[in-house]
Amino acid sequence: MKFVIIGGDAAGMSAASRAKRNQPDVEITVLEKTMDVSYSACGMPYNIADPDRDINDLVVRSASVFREKQGINLLTGHCVETIDIKAKTVSGSTLENDSFDIPYDRLLIATGASAMVLDLPGFDLPEVMALKNLEDGRKIKQKLLDAQKVIIMGMGYIGLEMAEALRARNIDVDMVEILSRVLPWLEPSLADVVEKELRLHDVGLYLGQEVKRIEKNETKVCVVCEDLTLSGNMVLAATGIRPNSQLAEEAGLDLGPYRSIAVDRMVQTSDPNIFAAGDCADAFHVVTGQKAWIPLALRANRAGWAAADNVCGKNILLPGIAGTAVFKVFDLEVARTGLNSQEASEYGFTPAEVVITARTRAHAHPGALEIRVQMVGDTKSGRLLGVQMIAKEGAAHRINAPAVALHGHMTVEQFSQSDLAYAPPFGPVWDPLLIAANQLIKKLV
Amino acid sequence: MKFVIIGGDAAGMSAASRAKRNQPDVEITVLEKTMDVSYSACGMPYNIADPDRDINDLVVRSASVFREKQGINLLTGHCVETIDIKAKTVSGSTLENDSFDIPYDRLLIATGASAMVLDLPGFDLPEVMALKNLEDGRKIKQKLLDAQKVIIMGMGYIGLEMAEALRARNIDVDMVEILSRVLPWLEPSLADVVEKELRLHDVGLYLGQEVKRIEKNETKVCVVCEDLTLSGNMVLAATGIRPNSQLAEEAGLDLGPYRSIAVDRMVQTSDPNIFAAGDCADAFHVVTGQKAWIPLALRANRAGWAAADNVCGKNILLPGIAGTAVFKVFDLEVARTGLNSQEASEYGFTPAEVVITARTRAHAHPGALEIRVQMVGDTKSGRLLGVQMIAKEGAAHRINAPAVALHGHMTVEQFSQSDLAYAPPFGPVWDPLLIAANQLIKKLV
Repeated sequence: MKFVIIGGDAAGMSAASRAKRNQPDVEITVLEKTMDVSYSACGMPYNIADPDRDINDLVVRSASVFREKQGINLLTGHCVETIDIKAKTVSGSTLENDSFDIPYDRLLIATGASAMVLDLPGFDLPEVMALKNLEDGRKIKQKLLDAQKVIIMGMGYIGLEMAEALRARNIDVDMVEILSRVLPWLEPSLADVVEKELRLHDVGLYLGQEVKRIEKNETKVCVVCEDLTLSGNMVLAATGIRPNSQLAEEAGLDLGPYRSIAVDRMVQTSDPNIFAAGDCADAFHVVTGQKAWIPLALRANRAGWAAADNVCGKNILLPGIAGTAVFKVFDLEVARTGLNSQEASEYGFTPAEVVITARTRAHAHPGALEIRVQMVGDTKSGRLLGVQMIAKEGAAHRINAPAVALHGHMTVEQFSQSDLAYAPPFGPVWDPLLIAANQLIKKLV
Repeated sequence: MKFVIIGGDAAGMSAASRAKRNQPDVEITVLEKTMDVSYSACGMPYNIADPDRDINDLVVRSASVFREKQGINLLTGHCVETIDIKAKTVSGSTLENDSFDIPYDRLLIATGASAMVLDLPGFDLPEVMALKNLEDGRKIKQKLLDAQKVIIMGMGYIGLEMAEALRARNIDVDMVEILSRVLPWLEPSLADVVEKELRLHDVGLYLGQEVKRIEKNETKVCVVCEDLTLSGNMVLAATGIRPNSQLAEEAGLDLGPYRSIAVDRMVQTSDPNIFAAGDCADAFHVVTGQKAWIPLALRANRAGWAAADNVCGKNILLPGIAGTAVFKVFDLEVARTGLNSQEASEYGFTPAEVVITARTRAHAHPGALEIRVQMVGDTKSGRLLGVQMIAKEGAAHRINAPAVALHGHMTVEQFSQSDLAYAPPFGPVWDPLLIAANQLIKKLV
């Protein structure tokens, strides 16, 4: 069987390795348009933070290992331009402009996502850079060697992680965002904590500012808004990403939310010979039961495995995602799982929420810090719908308990009765999650 | 209604406050044999670690607040000696040797647990001290003012926490234990990590040593084993605890595991007017569905609330405990939830287990440390049965995810599909828990 995979990062290479392990006689060809495969994209901000670290440290497994040790036909610099679903071939051209045409029995599209390109004058200047693939990271790292100041457009988590990375190198940072606050999905009082943290680390915050154009003068690049011009040596465009679904769309495959590639629980597309996994594809959300496009690394790896298993004739169904995410911004841990109140309303729930402030360690234990927890439940069914948390310690790993509860379709009442760990160095007797759940129950009765 | 509570710590005072909030006209009398109420017993080792901290810092709410602000008739220095379940009275004597006899409509027994008293020559010497209540903590703190060396008998978590506390004060510590390793419930390779950590902090470990007697010479107290004598200024007896159930037993109430007071899901004893909560009572285990005696702080507070709610006519059923526990020993976090393989076999499961070693941060992320995870599943049903973890970071809060899964009766397969949080500073893409689950699945098929 010929199994062809388009895209050589998390989902694609996971699938390639897994299929080879499942069934050594499968002929696997991976077509990757760049020269990089199997790297930790999420690690880029942390690598960029340290000028002495080689960006290639982020490579998890080198191309030669896939080729020589695993027997995978890994073709880098191969850009697929067309999928012919009738002929079952993919065709395209290499970086050396040779064309190729490769037949498949089963195809996996793992083309990932791209940074959003804004239709703005000057957005195409070479000083305007995005951070999505390893080559982006390489270029940014080179550029930063002589940068004193960077303007970050957008305040999602990549923007925030990069703000921290740049400040670690003592590079000045201004952030500009069209919305009136950071992380629009985050509960406002939690978002306030993030804003304070950014200001504490001397990040310039310009909220509610629409960028009109980007200009270049002799020494600087300038981000021009209505009544504000910010200038620096580089602009990081971190205004969001979009799924790389054009190939699939042109081949006639169905699309899902945000024009991601629609897949079923077997990660099969509308063509039974074609699977899709990773940032280019959608997934079922365990809370809503509906399709969602939440591109994150774990589900890319997991969907890659599922594609490989199903290509090899297993019958693996993915239950779906809870939208669990965490990131660090300076000394803060910010975490979420499930839905916020607005999302819950949009999906037909009747949400109630609480926001509580508790301590990260027990009563009278030295070093206790504040932790804030927002918890959302459905007033009709009593179901737990989502949790957000922020703290300088103990938020990142704590979020996994409600994430599992969402997978189990637990009510807030059931979650409130869970036997969570307690010891004075790690939290109060009633964990902050239980304090929130105990309060939320009262609003659901 | 007269609601009488025997015992004024976690379970008792939680119940008193909750009942008063539920129904302000309930007449609540709390009978506490010591002069201390509502303190964080679990915080004692950390308080003892710092000679400059007042032990009374551990008091969560003072007696006067309960009396004056909450209208609770809190009687300290009142030791109950008899419960007459026919007459519905409790009687006893005060520290001033006055006798009392108090009628109740509903009674809560929250008498806690006591340190095990060993039948050994010299165990009654004043230098042999246990750490269970606040007065114990006070005496130990006083004793330590001129102690250079302490012998700890027993290597459970109180012994280990105290070893850390004493070393923080630069007091020498020898630990002696009859079993051949620390924490017999802990998977051997994880227990090895604990032993290494203790030795690294210059704690003398004497395993497999049975104490024959304790002797005193002019300057020291000596713990005498077959071929070994350890001497110091004090002996900490931390060889386990037992439930204070004698009152209940003498009143004719049913007992459960380890002679704890048997209660149903409403925390009601075999007498419908009498409830029991906290370290003196048993509970249902969510994995086995059977009774268990696992005395920990959260379930004491929770059972106190449930008793108060049910006394006030609500109909609260506690789903039970998962046996989730965590503690810190020097720089290590040790956590568990559910059953280990031996316990699983004893309860009729056919367990399989894996032990994996992973990293606490992502590939190539600075500062990553080792984390070990043991996971147990049932080969027949596929159910997740228990998890143990040890690491210098990220074990304490991570344990809550499998704890919730145990409450949800999830299979290992279902747990392996849970959408856990990922960011490079907090763990690998595949969380160590998922790595363990992915490996364990293969043993369950």
